[in-house]
Amino acid sequence: MPTPLELELEVDAATSSPRRLSLHPDRALPADGRQRAVAREIYGQTAELPLICMHGHVEAEVFAANQPFADPAQLLVVPDHYVTRMLVSQGIDPASLGVPRVDGGPVETDSRAIWRTFCRNWRLFRGTPSRYWMEHELAEVFGVDLVPSAETADAIYDQIEARIAEPGFRPLQLLDRFSIELISTTDSATSGLEHHAQLAGEGYGERIIPTFRPDAAVHLDRRGWRAEVAALAEVSGEDTSSYEGFLGALRERRRAFVEAGGLATDHGHLTADTTPMDRGAAARLYARALAGGQVSEQEAQAFAAHMLFVNAEMSCQDGLVMQIHPGVLRDHHRGTFERHGQDKGFDIPVAAEFTRSLRPVLERFGHDPRFRAILFTVDETVYSRELAPLAGAYPSLRLGAPWWFLDSPEGMRRFRETATETAGFYNTSGFVDDTRAFASIPARHDLFRRIDAGYLARLVLEHRLSLEEAVETAVDLAYTLPKTAYSRRSA
Amino acid sequence: MPTPLELELEVDAATSSPRRLSLHPDRALPADGRQRAVAREIYGQTAELPLICMHGHVEAEVFAANQPFADPAQLLVVPDHYVTRMLVSQGIDPASLGVPRVDGGPVETDSRAIWRTFCRNWRLFRGTPSRYWMEHELAEVFGVDLVPSAETADAIYDQIEARIAEPGFRPLQLLDRFSIELISTTDSATSGLEHHAQLAGEGYGERIIPTFRPDAAVHLDRRGWRAEVAALAEVSGEDTSSYEGFLGALRERRRAFVEAGGLATDHGHLTADTTPMDRGAAARLYARALAGGQVSEQEAQAFAAHMLFVNAEMSCQDGLVMQIHPGVLRDHHRGTFERHGQDKGFDIPVAAEFTRSLRPVLERFGHDPRFRAILFTVDETVYSRELAPLAGAYPSLRLGAPWWFLDSPEGMRRFRETATETAGFYNTSGFVDDTRAFASIPARHDLFRRIDAGYLARLVLEHRLSLEEAVETAVDLAYTLPKTAYSRRSA
Amino acid sequence: MPTPLELELEVDAATSSPRRLSLHPDRALPADGRQRAVAREIYGQTAELPLICMHGHVEAEVFAANQPFADPAQLLVVPDHYVTRMLVSQGIDPASLGVPRVDGGPVETDSRAIWRTFCRNWRLFRGTPSRYWMEHELAEVFGVDLVPSAETADAIYDQIEARIAEPGFRPLQLLDRFSIELISTTDSATSGLEHHAQLAGEGYGERIIPTFRPDAAVHLDRRGWRAEVAALAEVSGEDTSSYEGFLGALRERRRAFVEAGGLATDHGHLTADTTPMDRGAAARLYARALAGGQVSEQEAQAFAAHMLFVNAEMSCQDGLVMQIHPGVLRDHHRGTFERHGQDKGFDIPVAAEFTRSLRPVLERFGHDPRFRAILFTVDETVYSRELAPLAGAYPSLRLGAPWWFLDSPEGMRRFRETATETAGFYNTSGFVDDTRAFASIPARHDLFRRIDAGYLARLVLEHRLSLEEAVETAVDLAYTLPKTAYSRRSA
Repeated sequence: MPTPLELELEVDAATSSPRRLSLHPDRALPADGRQRAVAREIYGQTAELPLICMHGHVEAEVFAANQPFADPAQLLVVPDHYVTRMLVSQGIDPASLGVPRVDGGPVETDSRAIWRTFCRNWRLFRGTPSRYWMEHELAEVFGVDLVPSAETADAIYDQIEARIAEPGFRPLQLLDRFSIELISTTDSATSGLEHHAQLAGEGYGERIIPTFRPDAAVHLDRRGWRAEVAALAEVSGEDTSSYEGFLGALRERRRAFVEAGGLATDHGHLTADTTPMDRGAAARLYARALAGGQVSEQEAQAFAAHMLFVNAEMSCQDGLVMQIHPGVLRDHHRGTFERHGQDKGFDIPVAAEFTRSLRPVLERFGHDPRFRAILFTVDETVYSRELAPLAGAYPSLRLGAPWWFLDSPEGMRRFRETATETAGFYNTSGFVDDTRAFASIPARHDLFRRIDAGYLARLVLEHRLSLEEAVETAVDLAYTLPKTAYSRRSA
Repeated sequence: MPTPLELELEVDAATSSPRRLSLHPDRALPADGRQRAVAREIYGQTAELPLICMHGHVEAEVFAANQPFADPAQLLVVPDHYVTRMLVSQGIDPASLGVPRVDGGPVETDSRAIWRTFCRNWRLFRGTPSRYWMEHELAEVFGVDLVPSAETADAIYDQIEARIAEPGFRPLQLLDRFSIELISTTDSATSGLEHHAQLAGEGYGERIIPTFRPDAAVHLDRRGWRAEVAALAEVSGEDTSSYEGFLGALRERRRAFVEAGGLATDHGHLTADTTPMDRGAAARLYARALAGGQVSEQEAQAFAAHMLFVNAEMSCQDGLVMQIHPGVLRDHHRGTFERHGQDKGFDIPVAAEFTRSLRPVLERFGHDPRFRAILFTVDETVYSRELAPLAGAYPSLRLGAPWWFLDSPEGMRRFRETATETAGFYNTSGFVDDTRAFASIPARHDLFRRIDAGYLARLVLEHRLSLEEAVETAVDLAYTLPKTAYSRRSA
Repeated sequence: MPTPLELELEVDAATSSPRRLSLHPDRALPADGRQRAVAREIYGQTAELPLICMHGHVEAEVFAANQPFADPAQLLVVPDHYVTRMLVSQGIDPASLGVPRVDGGPVETDSRAIWRTFCRNWRLFRGTPSRYWMEHELAEVFGVDLVPSAETADAIYDQIEARIAEPGFRPLQLLDRFSIELISTTDSATSGLEHHAQLAGEGYGERIIPTFRPDAAVHLDRRGWRAEVAALAEVSGEDTSSYEGFLGALRERRRAFVEAGGLATDHGHLTADTTPMDRGAAARLYARALAGGQVSEQEAQAFAAHMLFVNAEMSCQDGLVMQIHPGVLRDHHRGTFERHGQDKGFDIPVAAEFTRSLRPVLERFGHDPRFRAILFTVDETVYSRELAPLAGAYPSLRLGAPWWFLDSPEGMRRFRETATETAGFYNTSGFVDDTRAFASIPARHDLFRRIDAGYLARLVLEHRLSLEEAVETAVDLAYTLPKTAYSRRSA
């Protein structure tokens, strides 16, 4: 056991100057010395594996345009609601962070000012994954060697600005630099997929693929639903004035996504309810909503649940893997939504339920070899209670990676601790990042591999797994499982 | 601190050949070296204590017949739904695993083929308690020294087959080999307890005892409820055509269980609700159900809740300890239920509630010295929120051991971490295994003792407990508490 | 790695005689050697910081009278429901512990007998925070050097009795001895604050302050509500016969609390619901209740929710920080309540909900710089699911310290592990003790500082934080944040 003094020296060596940023090679590996040594060996076998990024939110346009990133603030602060919400939570106005206003009103445009605000408040991120990812991005991606602070803000800004001006830092070039083998964008049902077509023409068709996300088309009570249905008619060539035509349009769009290389669909609903409606009742409700009639919250939720069932049925036909992301109450603060729009950090989880909610789909398709659903949650209580028992029984189910707030060192560790004993490792999907912050993708995958290495190392030291098995499992979780989980089912 | 190299050697020594199965003496003890050393001392004081098995599901007939086990697959795979569900979850058909069909249709009968499927898929069990128990059974009980795999399947089969043919491996002989001091079977209210009578005649009357489980008689909406009530009349000699007669029959059966050495009842309900019904309303509902009238799901649940209250009342009279196991939605996949029947791995937990649900029984009997209830859950969220506060106040309550999916290394650890601070150790029941896999019983008790040793070792090292106290507590948890928790209350 | 023998010696050194009580300097620091060494350094920087005690339940009268404590049992056992409930849970009658009866009936008055019962049952507290606090109190505050047991009970009694007779052990003198910089009492809306006035006259006005707790005035269905409203009229000089007058009286009382140095309000509700009622409907319901008309449970809860909204509005005007403590079902066992009254260990948590419940208040005041709410829970599931996401977004919110059953080593550790990654450290309030056991206050703060040091040490060793940052954070959590979280908002 090292003495306190030795320890202090060791710690100091890693953090020799409070102003000097460097990534310790053992970061996020277990604190315990024996566990760390085993974890290091396991991590060593996965660190360099290519990345499979099947739940990305980088826009296809970013790759199609392949322009240099604007500036450090516009790249790393303004669009990242993990970052802006933390600054807002301490009383900083979103507008002063350059977060655009819905009404086009004035917001801070001086990117240096925004960047300084961020650096000055660096301590707020202590203990958060945002801090961890940001350090990785700064050091590994942009070659920054200073810890953010009021004093270092400008110097860091300059370093990043210089780096993103280099030709090797354009989006498509970063794919190689980041070892991204496959990345999926997230696209609305009405997307014409033009950017994907362009990218396919440039040889990226199998590397950058779309994911079909029909949320805006299935929530009758969301603003703009009728516009979405009209757009759906246009892009699909189907007549969506009837419910049958609406289904036909969705089927047609799914076909177009498959043709564009798509492997999956994605569904963000308030609940995981999948109860189907009677076909006649669904058609009547659809017609009423389309005619501008009143639709209650309950009716809208029933229709959304029904559409999960319908999409599951379609997945059996076209083989697209179904991703379900329930349990988030969007736009909790109306004022923020009205001033700044969606995805501004005010989406708050609610308690989730899967056992009863998924039963209709699982009764029908749960054992169908053509069906595959990957489940996500921001309510950890369902890991051991519902998700692991379900995934440990139904062949169609896989558990997705810890999602959103849970995509973090402690969150990932708890996921393994609470899900593995019942679901095993092989009913999980491996890592799926979930970000619009492109530059953070390598950090996220790397963190997952480190945390998994730590968990597996403990199993090895507790003699619950051999080292050989642990390494094999780690490789499967980092690379093999995401590929097989998202392979298109043969219809 | 060992260097990585030393560590590697140490790990290798434990797993020197990937094909060679051996149990490390420190398995499931804490990974940390200091904690492990203390845990080893604590565990050393409990490892050899006899087993008290008060929630078993081995059939009394198995002991009464005392025949050799059929073969490895029929012993270790086919009847264990923990094992078959995991294989099913990866697309293997239950029929190909020999799981009998309700309609008597064909299933795999080649036990070697079933065993090979199991061994070939050994990796699916990584990180699960099934893997841990099975390793223990193979190595400790059957003397197997090979790791399961496609290549080793036949050799392992031969080793087990030879061992179970030995006279010392019959069920009654294993009681001694396993150091089982007391084992309870689980018997329906209509059981004539003939096997127990036979075993009593052979001198096993105080070692193999029945537990009274009236579930089939109290759920009005289950298939076969009326047949159960008719059988109840027959075995009890009471006229169950009225509600009063029904209660009389239950009272009479409980008496017979007490006479046969029974110490406890067991209740598996969807919820923990114990709200009593008005006696007249209960009688009318009973009469309607018996006459084949319509009973709604709500009415059936209300009656089941009422019967928990009634059984609590009866426990005050006859002193049987009441075990409550709520929160599982049985037979989630109807198709599997219809093809293969109950207990096939498709029982999925739902959120549990105890605070309000138990209030009626606790208001009435919670301080009654004649009453004892032991509570189980598969929803961990209630440990710190509801169960520990309840058991830490009401003298009639004890917390049962982590149950079902939670009967696992991480599950047990979390139980101690979340329940102990509020309930203390002495409001828990100690370990209660819950299995129909007879050969896994020693593994389960051993694992519990190891995990508890690890938890107690941490408390010692954090100076929250002396080593002497930790050892005393460990012995109490492993042996003393299960005996005292299940001692019949003096009425 | 120490050998088992070395370890045994080391452990023995700390616990050399089972009868000899001594506090190990490293107690409650991490078991792991490396983590402990770092934690020790961090803890060293916070151990001596003054205490900010913003949620105390010591009566103002105790300080105003400043009398010696009665005797060991009356000081440490009888009034502490954490202690009595544990003894009750093992079948000991509250009356035999001297817990007063509502009807004034006989209870044990021999304090030595009560103390002996407590000491004889010392083992029940193993693994609980009560044990940890009590050891600290005995050793640090009262200089006891014996472990409680049947044999040592009288000797310990004598030691404490002698100590509390010393002039330095009176309540006001203990403020200095305990380094309490600021302590808040909890006072009903109808309190005349006479003791605070007296203390202010003695120069304690800024050190001992009141907290405004209007619970009895806002729950229409609680016994004595009308008497409370009448008392409110009297003390405020407002006419509470109308709803408007009732609001005026509350406003006036809040003003008086502000004048007496109060910084906060406190609200104990069954749920966190903050839905406002229509003003007319609230007035009518108030009038009906005041006239003795029937008020349903739903109506009473709706009114209580409304009053949370109203109090939030008032906080924006007078700057009092709002503390919300929901989710406890009070007086679960009616018999205990009727015999012994409130706060006797039979308050049991229920599942909590914050996301939807707080929305009305947060929509309106969540971004108002004059508003501050500090949230508490006894349902841990909301930490990562609801509370951290809310506090990590809304500038008005802070997360309070782990509360009640969760104010414990494991509870605190889980709080940091589940809340920090999303809320950060700086959206928490730092430590707030919650006790009527005055002598346990230093133990509670000290424990919190040790657990936080352990958590921060792990982050340092995982290279997620520098040691310098960890120390700064620890100081903020122990001292700076409680002061700033509870600073009165400028209206």
